[in-house]
Amino acid sequence: MPDYGAALSLPIPTGERLLADLEQLATFVEPDTPGWTRRFPSPAYLAGRVWLQAAMQHAGLTPRIDAAGNLLGTRRGTADLPPILIGSHTDTVLGGGRYDGTLGVLAALEVVRCFNDAGITLRHPLIVADFLAEEANAYGISCVGSRGLAGTFQSAWLARTLDGVTLERAIQAAGGDPAGLIGPLYAPGALAACLELHIEQGPVLAQAGRSLAAVSGIVGIQRGTLRLRGQPDHAGTTPMAMRHDALAAAAVLITTLEQLCHAGPQTVGTIGRLEVQPNQSNVVPGEVLLTAEIRSLNPAVLAQVWQQFWARATAATAQRGVTLELVALTSSPPVTSPAWLVELVHRVCCSLDEGALVLPSGAGHDSSQLAQIAPTAMIFVPSAGGRSHCPDEDTAPHHLRLGGAALARAVLALDEALA
Amino acid sequence: MPDYGAALSLPIPTGERLLADLEQLATFVEPDTPGWTRRFPSPAYLAGRVWLQAAMQHAGLTPRIDAAGNLLGTRRGTADLPPILIGSHTDTVLGGGRYDGTLGVLAALEVVRCFNDAGITLRHPLIVADFLAEEANAYGISCVGSRGLAGTFQSAWLARTLDGVTLERAIQAAGGDPAGLIGPLYAPGALAACLELHIEQGPVLAQAGRSLAAVSGIVGIQRGTLRLRGQPDHAGTTPMAMRHDALAAAAVLITTLEQLCHAGPQTVGTIGRLEVQPNQSNVVPGEVLLTAEIRSLNPAVLAQVWQQFWARATAATAQRGVTLELVALTSSPPVTSPAWLVELVHRVCCSLDEGALVLPSGAGHDSSQLAQIAPTAMIFVPSAGGRSHCPDEDTAPHHLRLGGAALARAVLALDEALA
Repeated sequence: MPDYGAALSLPIPTGERLLADLEQLATFVEPDTPGWTRRFPSPAYLAGRVWLQAAMQHAGLTPRIDAAGNLLGTRRGTADLPPILIGSHTDTVLGGGRYDGTLGVLAALEVVRCFNDAGITLRHPLIVADFLAEEANAYGISCVGSRGLAGTFQSAWLARTLDGVTLERAIQAAGGDPAGLIGPLYAPGALAACLELHIEQGPVLAQAGRSLAAVSGIVGIQRGTLRLRGQPDHAGTTPMAMRHDALAAAAVLITTLEQLCHAGPQTVGTIGRLEVQPNQSNVVPGEVLLTAEIRSLNPAVLAQVWQQFWARATAATAQRGVTLELVALTSSPPVTSPAWLVELVHRVCCSLDEGALVLPSGAGHDSSQLAQIAPTAMIFVPSAGGRSHCPDEDTAPHHLRLGGAALARAVLALDEALA
Repeated sequence: MPDYGAALSLPIPTGERLLADLEQLATFVEPDTPGWTRRFPSPAYLAGRVWLQAAMQHAGLTPRIDAAGNLLGTRRGTADLPPILIGSHTDTVLGGGRYDGTLGVLAALEVVRCFNDAGITLRHPLIVADFLAEEANAYGISCVGSRGLAGTFQSAWLARTLDGVTLERAIQAAGGDPAGLIGPLYAPGALAACLELHIEQGPVLAQAGRSLAAVSGIVGIQRGTLRLRGQPDHAGTTPMAMRHDALAAAAVLITTLEQLCHAGPQTVGTIGRLEVQPNQSNVVPGEVLLTAEIRSLNPAVLAQVWQQFWARATAATAQRGVTLELVALTSSPPVTSPAWLVELVHRVCCSLDEGALVLPSGAGHDSSQLAQIAPTAMIFVPSAGGRSHCPDEDTAPHHLRLGGAALARAVLALDEALA
């Protein structure tokens, strides 16, 4: 194993430019919206990208917009090797915060400036990416740009329309060329590796008091919508033993899912949506519609926990004379980063925070798409209180700076490892 | 104890007139409504009462409308004694059935005709009552007429307005004189006793295969609205051990209430209404608002079960870092019929169905109000499938007929017992 001596001794930048850039980008917001709202395909979002393109040029990058509308700034390498790609996204959710996505883009830009300042050249070309429209948007699609780049974008989506504007036109307005979205924009092997720095959007790093984590992968999601049908009897006249209470049956399901996921390692399960019919205080609940989801990095655990949940749900409802129906089931498989790459990123993180963690990501990211065509890994910095997708999303300046340093060191280490 | 020889050998009427009257009254329905809808203060309801008033006169009763809008038809007694009152109500819920209330009024009318046919005179005057507006109506008040009669009507309610019409005007339109609603219309002691025949509106008689029940009382209700506040975290990034899941806490409450009420004798408990915030499949539930109620004939059980529920709810929520707030608490005390009267009614029922039950009523009735001023009891006949407040509310003709016979025999027995 290489010792990455040069990479791990790279000085930690002051972070002043990174913080200034984050503040600058945060000025591009949609009028009359809460928090820092900058959604695709709003003018505020497009204006932020014009500013970013100029900043890329100023850092010596050669910017272009690819067919999927991704803004890509390239720095030359010294050898004829496939590029290393680093980046994230600059769009936000409605009422979002200042760090989700933006940190990964602006830290990548700062990595380039640090390399420039230190006179560091890489063997591999380096691409700084701002992926188009990562957040789920009003067209009902997330990761528009990274899907386009990885070849997982479905051209049928282009006809979807919002306020009279098709998704095709919206991508064109962002500088893309949707007609060119046939297959991946980089064939497997055409990118050496991808790295994404991101805020954790969860409480684990903050509660552990750590600054950095290497992300082992992105969890898969098994999500089912269940309908429980009992009988809507009079709450006064129906003895307990004669009831078919759909909500009492649902309560058993909620408790069961919680217990199963507490027992499983790095598995979470949630019943986040639940509706009762007729929902009157004096009527025994006749029907419950609920959505149950399980997330895990391990596809076998995902399948097994769902199977156990379903078996216990079937038994608990049958025992009460309540019918159980699976209305819908969606499944997205886990994405696991290559072990060597997680190991490399973790070594880099430990050089900056000796107790750096290895964590799965419970949320989806552009990296889920990139992993389809290239070795891909992520780095997490803490989210204060685990909060994200809200105006009080926060990460300490110290952690932003360390995240940028980790990204720079990881690029150097990769350049050495892959050459 | 008297042997009620004459009462218990009264012939069982054929029931043909009763069935015909039920059919006739069922023709008075509001246009464009489901089932048999005849609500206060609709013209259909008022028209039905005009028909009923004529039927009372035809049966030799002297009808009048009291200050509370109750339609009361009196048959003279042979002694100077306070009257025995029998009756129920003719209004329905939206989409109601054909027997809730109407059976008690029309069977009372049939009792008078049977006495007339058999040349039976009573020592007590007998009043057949159609109480105004028993069902909870759009003014938000139930048992309007029986509350007025019993002196439990609050004059402040008269100002409530529906479609520009005050409750005062609506009672006037039904023939009442709300200005006269000061104190009970019959002082305690001014009525010898009250009897109400009603469908069970629950499944107990039908499941036991019995035809009649003497009602021991009307349950009290303890009803609380609870707010559980946890934290609306990301369902993917928040480990199970770091969650404050308001719905998972609510599930424990649902299961706890069910277990406590299963254990209690003749106690029921229901969480019929529950709402989740933000109610999204990918967000850990941050808040749950639910209504929990307990019903029992025993006030000590009611208080004890609520206390146990609250103690366990407090512990279960605290354990999860979820706050528990009691938003509202309402309490209506149980109404217990006098033991001698339940005993009398049960003996009468057993003369027609040797295995007749003694049951509490889990639903509210006009009798709850009448019990404030006079010895009051009820008789139940089966509801097919326990269904009520719906178009498929049904009671077999045989049971309707037996109910009428039980009411007639009970009146005769009361006339003997009280004279």
